[in-house]
Amino acid sequence: MFENSNKIPMEKLSADGRARRHALLMGGAVLAAAAVVDFMPETIQAATIAQAEKPIEFLFAIYPNGTLLDFAGPNEILSRLPNTKVRFASPDGGLVTLEKGVTFGPTEKLSDIERVDVICVPGALDLSAMMKPEILAHIRRLSESARYVTSVCTGSIILAAAGVLKGKRSACHWAFLNVLKKYGAIPDPARIVKDGRFMSGGGVTAGIDFGVAIAAELRGVQAAQEVQLLVQYDPQPPFHAGNPSDAPPKVRDAVYKMLPGSENGLMQPIL
Amino acid sequence: MFENSNKIPMEKLSADGRARRHALLMGGAVLAAAAVVDFMPETIQAATIAQAEKPIEFLFAIYPNGTLLDFAGPNEILSRLPNTKVRFASPDGGLVTLEKGVTFGPTEKLSDIERVDVICVPGALDLSAMMKPEILAHIRRLSESARYVTSVCTGSIILAAAGVLKGKRSACHWAFLNVLKKYGAIPDPARIVKDGRFMSGGGVTAGIDFGVAIAAELRGVQAAQEVQLLVQYDPQPPFHAGNPSDAPPKVRDAVYKMLPGSENGLMQPIL
Repeated sequence: MFENSNKIPMEKLSADGRARRHALLMGGAVLAAAAVVDFMPETIQAATIAQAEKPIEFLFAIYPNGTLLDFAGPNEILSRLPNTKVRFASPDGGLVTLEKGVTFGPTEKLSDIERVDVICVPGALDLSAMMKPEILAHIRRLSESARYVTSVCTGSIILAAAGVLKGKRSACHWAFLNVLKKYGAIPDPARIVKDGRFMSGGGVTAGIDFGVAIAAELRGVQAAQEVQLLVQYDPQPPFHAGNPSDAPPKVRDAVYKMLPGSENGLMQPIL
Repeated sequence: MFENSNKIPMEKLSADGRARRHALLMGGAVLAAAAVVDFMPETIQAATIAQAEKPIEFLFAIYPNGTLLDFAGPNEILSRLPNTKVRFASPDGGLVTLEKGVTFGPTEKLSDIERVDVICVPGALDLSAMMKPEILAHIRRLSESARYVTSVCTGSIILAAAGVLKGKRSACHWAFLNVLKKYGAIPDPARIVKDGRFMSGGGVTAGIDFGVAIAAELRGVQAAQEVQLLVQYDPQPPFHAGNPSDAPPKVRDAVYKMLPGSENGLMQPIL
């Protein structure tokens, strides 16, 4: 529904809508946004206009010891998507200390979030901060009312533990993929998995691919591709080693030994 | 020099070295690290041992209004590399408010950093926090003594403005690439560029490719590939739109209009 190509004159977009579009696309740099106004195209996709008064609310549910890139990847896409508001929440709100001791924020308190259009749970090795019954209950509550329920990496294990992935196909980091079965979800080794209103990405870096895919779902292919070009997402890994099936055997075997159980997709996260 | 394949028995690695290796690879999850000890391979690359008492210090020089993914991408690689210490510094130290209002930290104060092995300057649209003479002087000072001087995205414009890229080839975000000429650097449209001890990545997401490449340079191909597998870096973008040459013409033209000057690689950052 967001992919129609009707054009309407630029004047019909409110000044507020214009400023927001610039801010979103240009990284919130107000000075540059002002400079850009003179160069804006005279037409703009009707889809953006139609949604001008009702931004999509996209929530990352993050937590202590989480992996930064799991959400920093898709955030870089979603936060540049027109008329899309990215929010962050965590069990306690405020600043969150992630894996490796880096701090990220600010976040709202998960229990304070009433409803969002998209919930996205990123992953980590240590999922323990999310595995408490009262936190899982909030994940379940927000998942029930969201248009899309999504995850990156082992975030799908949190969704599954919350009971929202029963009988649903889901991606996960390759080393942990089959842990999903324990909660009644169906492991899918694809990098991006869509099963109805459930979308998920594989391990860590798959969050960027997932981000582009859900951007297209939410705002149309053209808008997603514009953001892809803005962040120059034309990946060229110097090696083929990103999956056990591609990696040289001695690399794969070394990582299997580092991550016990991973050979069978049964590495255990910290719960 | 880090790529030889000599093996030495595991016992020769100190307990501290083992713990550090586990912590680095496993995301600092001490509980899991303890579980992994039993599964560690009996041999380990000699390169890691040789460096056990002297970690490589890798510094990200970040700043207000910077783009999160520019450093979050390579950080996810470097922070998992054996015996490599990632540090963050900023003009004022402490927590830094990035583009889109997200906060990241902690950071050291740039003027307090004496020397590092690798300096990496990530990019942004708004480079103004780094363009002050006293800040550029610290970038120049640290670049002179570093083994590698590196950047992601428009971070190369900061390095160039600091005077350290004269006559050197460098990558940059495609929209800003030719701005490098103003400072005597040689624009190179490749995604990863190496010119002697200078290495750089293109726009935003290129930081991950750059991260894998410099990981191989610092710790050998095997170690870089192990980390690539850990973060499942097997990118599969749903569209081909990550470069002006690949993007559908209407996507490319829309972004050219959003980013004035970008058609000729002459989009002006905020300085």
